[in-house]
Amino acid sequence: MSTTLTVNSYFNDQVKSVALNNAEGTSTVGVMAVGEYEFGTSQREYMTVVSGSLTVMLPSESEWKTFAKGETFIIEANQAFQVKVTEMTAYFCRYE
Amino acid sequence: MSTTLTVNSYFNDQVKSVALNNAEGTSTVGVMAVGEYEFGTSQREYMTVVSGSLTVMLPSESEWKTFAKGETFIIEANQAFQVKVTEMTAYFCRYE
Repeated sequence: MSTTLTVNSYFNDQVKSVALNNAEGTSTVGVMAVGEYEFGTSQREYMTVVSGSLTVMLPSESEWKTFAKGETFIIEANQAFQVKVTEMTAYFCRYE
Repeated sequence: MSTTLTVNSYFNDQVKSVALNNAEGTSTVGVMAVGEYEFGTSQREYMTVVSGSLTVMLPSESEWKTFAKGETFIIEANQAFQVKVTEMTAYFCRYE
């Protein structure tokens, strides 16, 4: 396992995360600033809201759904999904 | 509220975090690499393990206690506490 901490920045610094790997797997924790984003997946992702909320249009769904602190949604590999963020939100994303 | 995302780095880049503020308050999410650290508080801190675990010597206690994913410990303002990290660990720290 890697022992150095990597910070990633996306969407013109509106989303920043720190990567980790441990017994639970490979993950990032980060923060999204207020805005709207479209993410793409290369692996299955388990996204958990740590603080704040994320309003998400999941692949193959037709309605926005809001996930609050402690809630998790799953996106399969090679999918795109849209996220609306109305307050700064911390998330934990585990990759499979 | 601030709209830019700030990354902080501590202990020779062994601890990195992203700050946020939202309806829940002012917080950071971050990752600690394997190691031992002593933190000091300037405000009351609510520390929650997001992934991994933290073994902590809390102020005024005499034994180490391990906190697992989802568990929270509280440190009052102006205290020092020691943390042992045996695998990369993600945390959420809320300040009061």
